[in-house]
This record gives sequence, structure tokens and C-alpha cells, in this order.
Amino acid sequence: MFAEIITIGDELLIGQVTDTNSAWMGRELNKAGIEVIRVVSVRDRAEEITEAVDDAMKRVDIVLVTGGLGPTKDDITKQTLCTYFGTELVFSEEVFENVKRVLAGRIPMNALNRSQAMVPKDCIVINNRVGSASVSWFERDDKVLVSMPGVPQEMTTVMSEEIIPRLREKFDTDIIIHKTFTVKNYPESVLAEKLESWEVALPECIKLAYLPKPGIIRLRLTGRGKQKEEVRMLMDMEAGKLEELLGDDIFDEDDTPLEILVGNLLKKKNLTVSTAESCTGGSIAARLTSIPGSSEYFKGAVVAYSNEIKEALLHVSTKTLEKRGAVSEETVVEMVKGAMETLKTDCAVSTSGIAGPGGGTREKPVGTVWIAAAYKNEIRTMKQETDRGREMNVERAGNNALLLLLELLK
Amino acid sequence: MFAEIITIGDELLIGQVTDTNSAWMGRELNKAGIEVIRVVSVRDRAEEITEAVDDAMKRVDIVLVTGGLGPTKDDITKQTLCTYFGTELVFSEEVFENVKRVLAGRIPMNALNRSQAMVPKDCIVINNRVGSASVSWFERDDKVLVSMPGVPQEMTTVMSEEIIPRLREKFDTDIIIHKTFTVKNYPESVLAEKLESWEVALPECIKLAYLPKPGIIRLRLTGRGKQKEEVRMLMDMEAGKLEELLGDDIFDEDDTPLEILVGNLLKKKNLTVSTAESCTGGSIAARLTSIPGSSEYFKGAVVAYSNEIKEALLHVSTKTLEKRGAVSEETVVEMVKGAMETLKTDCAVSTSGIAGPGGGTREKPVGTVWIAAAYKNEIRTMKQETDRGREMNVERAGNNALLLLLELLK
Repeated sequence: MFAEIITIGDELLIGQVTDTNSAWMGRELNKAGIEVIRVVSVRDRAEEITEAVDDAMKRVDIVLVTGGLGPTKDDITKQTLCTYFGTELVFSEEVFENVKRVLAGRIPMNALNRSQAMVPKDCIVINNRVGSASVSWFERDDKVLVSMPGVPQEMTTVMSEEIIPRLREKFDTDIIIHKTFTVKNYPESVLAEKLESWEVALPECIKLAYLPKPGIIRLRLTGRGKQKEEVRMLMDMEAGKLEELLGDDIFDEDDTPLEILVGNLLKKKNLTVSTAESCTGGSIAARLTSIPGSSEYFKGAVVAYSNEIKEALLHVSTKTLEKRGAVSEETVVEMVKGAMETLKTDCAVSTSGIAGPGGGTREKPVGTVWIAAAYKNEIRTMKQETDRGREMNVERAGNNALLLLLELLK
Repeated sequence: MFAEIITIGDELLIGQVTDTNSAWMGRELNKAGIEVIRVVSVRDRAEEITEAVDDAMKRVDIVLVTGGLGPTKDDITKQTLCTYFGTELVFSEEVFENVKRVLAGRIPMNALNRSQAMVPKDCIVINNRVGSASVSWFERDDKVLVSMPGVPQEMTTVMSEEIIPRLREKFDTDIIIHKTFTVKNYPESVLAEKLESWEVALPECIKLAYLPKPGIIRLRLTGRGKQKEEVRMLMDMEAGKLEELLGDDIFDEDDTPLEILVGNLLKKKNLTVSTAESCTGGSIAARLTSIPGSSEYFKGAVVAYSNEIKEALLHVSTKTLEKRGAVSEETVVEMVKGAMETLKTDCAVSTSGIAGPGGGTREKPVGTVWIAAAYKNEIRTMKQETDRGREMNVERAGNNALLLLLELLK
């Protein structure tokens, strides 16, 4: 079963907002056996919306439209879809009650909020329990088009609770199985060479894709077909061959973010963690705490951008800073020890480097980052090199720090 | 001048990777007077790529294609474009030299890397100085299609250095001016009502759009036309009217991220800053340090997830924690004072709250966050309420903390 996503809004085209909805929808639809074959973003113009909708309705059975449902003038999706489907907007008492309930206490009602209760006559209207824009479900010639709000929290709620269950019920969906292997220690082309003869021999219904991230490569195996058992068996067989080829260089098989892998391991072993961050600026702590329940194992962090703080809170010695410099193996080792001591945790990671674009020297060019991970008395370090821009240097240092800790704990 | 972007890769459709390239390209092309009217993401399938390319070539003069240029089997963009444009792949010595240079010292060369030097015969080949995949510039009937790598750092480098300058030279581009006002203190519908009569009277060539973010609303005014002076004059006039309507509730007119606004003000006033973070988990420090040069004013942070650390490093009193709880006005006030003291800075922000999904109580439901900002002896606090999900609660708390500090410093 194939679907297309249409995201509407000038802000997407001029790049003021990054479309994160489509990726989320792609993931969730896949799990339900619905494959997204195209994502189209168009401006808030009736003729452009209509063209995208019409093309999609010709190509696939399921069209999911997000955005353009706000109470303001620039939002025209609802009216445009009414024209396309030959229907009109009518006032819905039920939707109005929901708008009042959602906005209760937050803001005063006005005529614009009232307009949120105008819904297409000839469609199924689905309530949005977390927002004021309702969802319209149109059916034509056994095809479905659903128009929903573009606000991420509203979209994810209505998709999970209402739209995906209804789509599964209506369509006889294909089986799609993904398995994603996260691999360390390989440049993409070297890995590809190693896997080539296995890859060319893959059965027709199984595809391989390479998804590199800073410091790691993800390999995604996708199987699809009508026979659940057959697809699953073939996938297991090929996964087994891959595991044999790569051994311990595969460190995860569920595309789990590193912060969750580390968190799960800490919980299992009943250990606590902290971070001492210089060039990563708190981003490792932010990643670890982005996981619900992380307060079980994460206790805190010291972000030590200045040398004073490295000395005062992490007990890095003045001598080390003077002789070796802040970006050195000795400094990150003292930092990681300092973190475990000051923040009273069983393990810790530390980073110190030159994120760029300024601050590089001949000896320590931009991109140089020292990283340490410690578990009680055991400490591992690594040096990250080559500049990929400030943002990537920081993200890669975070990945490497978490990987280093993961290896140490295993 | 209109353009379309086509991003290629299965990983985009199944949501394993979020397409951030299109937003960046949209922004940069706009500055060059080129308007992106559609973004299409398709899978790594020849017929789907061809269909998207053919549609786009009919609609617009400029088509920008990213992705599918890696050395591995799943990447088929180059071959597909050759077939579409009726040409073939040939070996380029020059590109091969670049591939060798880029990969030098990083990884061993192999046959796959050699395939990176195969380029379409009938096109202009542009070197990629930061990666191994080259850029192909096709021209047909005065229209241009450019195929470039999807790796963000490679795409941004070749776009900035090579592609945009060449497009500006080839096409006589329209004038597009954006002005984005960041507004605080308004729910979207209340703001829309206040602006309605001004909005309906806007001249034809000027459009208004609402772009809400957690805790703030951005208003984007877009003017376009052939006459630079006329568009600029009309924009200035309408911007003036808007400033009169909203006064001090507009706190920025250049769509500047809050972390840059705060950073610029600190630099100007020659002040230093630190953060004391509980529920935001280091994300405010990470945002502040994401800005190049932030080491001038950012000294460090204490992420105090546990009460022990709030006491030990930030000197929050046991009595306060026991009587008022960690999520209280008193606690964030003591935290912000503690940060200035421990980290020796002129100002600081602090947060403590229940990010969710667990941990809420009747008195302090999920979503409750106390926030403080301090500058020397002056302290301001605020309470953030209503749960929008963990990620949004944290992002909004960060926005509110930076806003509070901004107001205090102004």
C-alpha cells in the first residue's frame, strides 16, 4: 500500500521551518505497512496545492496533507480542498465545543477561533483533542485523503490515535520489515567493498541502504511482500549473514539512538553517569536527558568552557593546562575523573576540543577533539580529527563519547 | 525566478533521516532572488526520479537535485540523469585527482571510490572540494538542472561557493525581500485579530505569514517585484506600521535565534553568562555554545538533575528543597544565584521543572517549569505551564529563559 505526503506552507519553502513531520510520518506509516513513495512541499497557493493533491490522488491510494489549517489568512488548505472535492464549509457545533475546550483558560475566544469550527461538509471530521484545528478525512473512489494540522504535537497525536488505526482498518496493507544495523570503525566505501558480494546476492524482496552519520554508519535492510512469514524468514537469514561478516563492529540492530543505548545499559547495571564538557557545550548532557526517565541514571554535568571552571569544579591541575593545554589527553582524563568525583557518579564522559571555525593552531587544528570515558578506575580516550564544521564536529564528538562509554561498559 | 528542489533517498521517505537540506537551500536561494516553489522527496528508483525531474523541468527554470551520489549500489542518481538527458558516464582524470585528494590519509582507495570519478559526458562538472562526489550542471533549453551530494556539509559548500554564484550570473533574478518580526506575549489568534485591518490593506506585492514557535510568534513579511527600490520602500512603510501596532512586543526584526540575540547583547555590554539547568538538561548551554565565538561570554554551566548537585554545586539550601520542592520559585532563584557565584559570571539563567511524561503531581503537573534570570542583584522569574510533550516543554523553557535574560539586560 502506497502513500504520499503533502506538506503545505510558505515557511517550508523559504526554509524558515524545517519539515520534521514527514520523517516522523514516514516512520510510523512504515510500521503499519504503508510505504511513503513521495513527499511534496508546496506554498500556500490554491493552484499549487490543488496540483499536488491531484497528482498524488492519481498515483497512490492514501494522501496525507499537513499544514495550512491555522486561524489566520495565509492558511487556505481547508477552502482549497473543499473546492477540489466539490463541497463547502459548514459550521460544526461539535468542533466548536472542542475548540472552546482546547483554548479554555489559555486565550480569549474571537471570530478567528470560531472559524476553526468551519469544516468541509462532505467528509468525515475527526476531532483533534490537543489543538483547535480539526482533521478532515475525504474518501473518493476508494482512495483516502486526510488533511491534518502541521503543528508537530497535534499531527503526531491525531496520526497515532486516529488516522493510522483507521487506515489499517480500511486497507489491506503489505508487510514491510526494516532492520537497521549500526556499525562503527568503517568508512562507507570500505564497508561497501566488504559487503559487495553479499549485497549482489540479496533476494529480490530485500534491499540494502547505507545511512552514514557523524562517526558511525547505519545499514538498513528492508524486506517487503505479502507473505509475512516468508519476508521474516528471508530477513533473518540475511541479517545472520551480515552479522557473520561484521561481527563486533555491529553494535546495535534496532537503530537505537546512542543516548538510549547508553541509558539502557546504565539502568541494567544500576550505574549513574555525569558529563564534563568543554567543546560539546552541554550537548551530551542534553542528549542524555532528552530520554524520559533519564533522571534514574543521569545526575548532572559540568560544562567547563573556561579553564577556571575546569580547575575549580573539575580539579584539572594548572600544571596540566599550562604544559599540555586544554585540548589534550591529560586534560580530558583529569576532567572525566573530576566529573565522577564532583558529581558523585559511577561513570562519566569528557570532551575538550576546537569546534571552530576559529581557535585552531598549527599543532591543534580546528576539528581536534580529545574525548575520555571512565567507569570507576578504567579510563579510555580517543582523539577526533578533521574539521567538518562546528555543528558536525560537536555532534561527532558526542557520538564518539557515547560510543566510548558504551564499549567500556559492555 | 522559480526553482524546485528534488531530494533523493529511501532514508528520507521512511523517515530515517530528516531532510534539513531543503530548508537551508530555500533560505539561501531566496537571498539570491530565486524562489523555491516546491520540494519533492523521492525514493532511489530510476522511474520515480525521472518522473520528478521531468515534472520539475516543465514547471521551472532551475531544478536542484541532492542525494544519491554515494559510491554504493543504492545510489543511482548519476546514471538516471544520464539516461534522462541522453548522455553517458565517462571517466574524468580531474575528478579522480580530487577524489584521491579528498580521501588522502582518511581511507584506502578502492574500486568504489574510482567509480566516483565517472561523470556525465554532456554536462559541466563542478569539483567538490570537501567530498568525493562531484557536481553535475546540465543545461537544456535555457533551463538548468544541478545534481549535487546530499551530505549537508558538502551540499552547503558547493551551493555557496559554486552553484548560487553561477545561477545569479545566468538568470536575471527577481527582488525578494523578507523581514521577520519576532513577537512575544501573544497567542496567534489574538495577534491575528489585532493585525487584521492592517493585513487586508497590504499592497498586492507584500504577503504576511505567521510562524509560531514554542513561546514566541514570528511574523514574516515578504515583498517581491522587479523594481528593487519600490519593493524596499513599500516594505519599509508596512514594517513601520507594524512596529507602531505592536511596539515593544516586537523584540527582533531579523529572525535572529535567541541565543545569538543574547550573545550579541552580552558581547556589547562585555558581560559573562552561565546556566544552572535542571529540566532543560544542558540544552540552554548547548544552544549558547552552538554560536561561534561564544567562549567570549559563555563560561560554563552546571546541569543539576539531582538535588544533591543543586545543593553541592549551586548552594540551594536543603530547607528550600524540603519546604518548597525542587520545582519552585525559591529553588530557581537560589540556583541562578549559585550559578553566578560558582561559575563567576555577571549573569545567569536557571530552570527547574517537570518535563514529563512522568513525574507530575496534582499540585505540580507535567509541564510546570520555574525559570529565573539574573543580572548582578536583579532577578526575574516566571512559571511556565501546560504540557506540550517533553521535547517542546524543554525547548519552550529554553526560549523563555533566554527571553527573560534578554529583557533583563535591555
